[in-house]
Amino acid sequence: MDALDPSRTVAELHELAALTSDERGAQRVAWGPVWREARGWLRERLDALGLDVRADAAGNTWATLRGRSDELIAIGSHLDSVPDGGWLDGALGVLAGLEVMRALAAGEPPPRSVVLIDWADEEGARFGHSLLGSSAAAGVLDVEAARGLSDRDGVALPDALAEHDVALERMPDAADERPELAAYLELHIEQGPVLEREGLPLAAVRGCFGVRRERMRFGGESAHAGATPLELRRDPVLAAAMFALAARKAAREHGGLATVGALRAEPGIPTAVAASCTATIDLRHEDPAALATLHEVTRAAAVAAAEAEGASVDVEPVWSIDPIPFDAELVATASELVSELGGRAEPLPSGPLHDAAAMARAGVPTVMLFVQSRGGLSHTAAEDTDEAHLELAVRALAGLLSRLQRS
Amino acid sequence: MDALDPSRTVAELHELAALTSDERGAQRVAWGPVWREARGWLRERLDALGLDVRADAAGNTWATLRGRSDELIAIGSHLDSVPDGGWLDGALGVLAGLEVMRALAAGEPPPRSVVLIDWADEEGARFGHSLLGSSAAAGVLDVEAARGLSDRDGVALPDALAEHDVALERMPDAADERPELAAYLELHIEQGPVLEREGLPLAAVRGCFGVRRERMRFGGESAHAGATPLELRRDPVLAAAMFALAARKAAREHGGLATVGALRAEPGIPTAVAASCTATIDLRHEDPAALATLHEVTRAAAVAAAEAEGASVDVEPVWSIDPIPFDAELVATASELVSELGGRAEPLPSGPLHDAAAMARAGVPTVMLFVQSRGGLSHTAAEDTDEAHLELAVRALAGLLSRLQRS
Repeated sequence: MDALDPSRTVAELHELAALTSDERGAQRVAWGPVWREARGWLRERLDALGLDVRADAAGNTWATLRGRSDELIAIGSHLDSVPDGGWLDGALGVLAGLEVMRALAAGEPPPRSVVLIDWADEEGARFGHSLLGSSAAAGVLDVEAARGLSDRDGVALPDALAEHDVALERMPDAADERPELAAYLELHIEQGPVLEREGLPLAAVRGCFGVRRERMRFGGESAHAGATPLELRRDPVLAAAMFALAARKAAREHGGLATVGALRAEPGIPTAVAASCTATIDLRHEDPAALATLHEVTRAAAVAAAEAEGASVDVEPVWSIDPIPFDAELVATASELVSELGGRAEPLPSGPLHDAAAMARAGVPTVMLFVQSRGGLSHTAAEDTDEAHLELAVRALAGLLSRLQRS
Repeated sequence: MDALDPSRTVAELHELAALTSDERGAQRVAWGPVWREARGWLRERLDALGLDVRADAAGNTWATLRGRSDELIAIGSHLDSVPDGGWLDGALGVLAGLEVMRALAAGEPPPRSVVLIDWADEEGARFGHSLLGSSAAAGVLDVEAARGLSDRDGVALPDALAEHDVALERMPDAADERPELAAYLELHIEQGPVLEREGLPLAAVRGCFGVRRERMRFGGESAHAGATPLELRRDPVLAAAMFALAARKAAREHGGLATVGALRAEPGIPTAVAASCTATIDLRHEDPAALATLHEVTRAAAVAAAEAEGASVDVEPVWSIDPIPFDAELVATASELVSELGGRAEPLPSGPLHDAAAMARAGVPTVMLFVQSRGGLSHTAAEDTDEAHLELAVRALAGLLSRLQRS
């Protein structure tokens, strides 16, 4: 792929950002007008390469370059962003893939066919359903559950999809339409601080963490801050405090991550013991058994904290997904390449979910590449990556594809 | 005082509640129309007794019954309530005082004169300034600070006062108008759970706790809950959690009370480490040196918690008042009487502030009586006290006044 020009990817990322951002960041929210414009911009470039471009029943774009065999390797990512998002989350993977396709199109047909997939609605920013398009293509979309979703203006998901010629009822057809894939590759920014702290540009990714997300409501007894002795209190704030610290301790002991991101006492009067305190807990682990243990230990800690304070605790499950390991052989291949390029010798796990998780769950041999994120920031206009690292990442994606063409 | 009829006080409390409450509770907020109605209702009853009734420059009502000497004993409390308040907080003290005055008026002039004071705006519910009328009468009102206060509709305090013929600039004159008081007595519900837990109806009160109230803002670093290893986090929620538990530990060690009533993580996203977490801390202690120690230890705990988590902490003082002991001799007299009536042998301290604190600070020999609160509840429509206890409390107030007439 002598024609590969990674600096063009950086230029196109800037071009797309200029077209689809305002002063608060990227606004390519799925099923909206800016996203439509971004996809139109991509479509022009795919058509110019003479690729076979079509949309599946879930609104995902598949742009295929025929090789010398029908065996098919996929490169995928998403153009949609969160509101006020960054210029790289999703877009990097698609535009790096575009450059790889462009280089392929400029040469002789490769041994295997290659398809670039732009997934529809990875973020779930408007309707709350992450990985919408890739879940449909993976055959795991729950149409019944999706039918009830609406955005904060009350627009129903099926109506928003219809504006983009997607019928919710027909979305599962995307799984039947999906061609057999020999491999699925996805390049993404890390969205975390590990590579920056280690001074490394790249890593292979060995799988996605499983998640257990819950809302814990500690109920106590409101009481006058000046009139109620400590030993007669039932203080939900102290129960929530014990719980937050115990959850972190559990993650230290059992590995994985524990985060109390939302915490709020009600009614929140400085001169009164609170009546209740609500905490969200987000637990992640790469290993299914360890995730189950972490979940169990954390639940027990919530009950123990409530009991210690004479409070109650109600647990509301919010979301849950099992860990998804990527393909061992592909991870080894990607690690070797990344290491040669000066990246991390050991693969990283991914805490955030990606469309790659849907493909892996569908049984497609899958691997991802991470490129360093400045400050670990994402889902914000401040999201950024050094241009040299972006260019190296495009090379890594192209290099990985080359190795899979040879194997 | 053979004419004393404590059941009449209970009936009048019900009558006043019916006149000045809605389904959410008492609405006698100072400087509003319902409070005006409550005061008019009281005025009719005071006039009927032939008392010398006048308003001072701060809007406090003084109703004097001449005795055989000019030596003057005061009974005081307040008719104003918080919004959605209870039927007893403040009103009990005034209406018990009314019954005592009625019994006195029915008999021969007592040895000493007696004045019933209805303080204006004890709660500070609308403008945030507690003890407004009694502070003015005590000579400690900060007129400059009060001038800047406004309610949540933007009405300025001086304008609201003017509607009730009170000029903020002239309020300090209430201190000059204040006659010399040989003693100040105040009956109030406990607003806490101690007497109920002990199965006792009454207690004498030996003073008011000092208060140190602050807002602690822990600043961390927002980060993806799935992408940021525990050891790279600067989590303000964990710092706030450590702080809340350390504050309670400090109060256990040094005595007094510590309360984190408001606690809130921002932006409060379940999938992200919070950027900041704000906690209010309310510290109370009866002893000035111990309060200073508790304050110091708690501040140090906030700094240590922030440091342990790599977070910052900003401390904003909210309010502060020193402990106020009541008159030792009066407390002994009141304790003896309360004990004889089946109440608590040892006096209690008061965590909440009362107008009595303003009088004590002005050098007036002061004591209070507490009557049991059901469930320790106050500042809510659920506030209540057994009728038998209310009647006993009226007897206790009358009995205490009798003893001071004899001494």
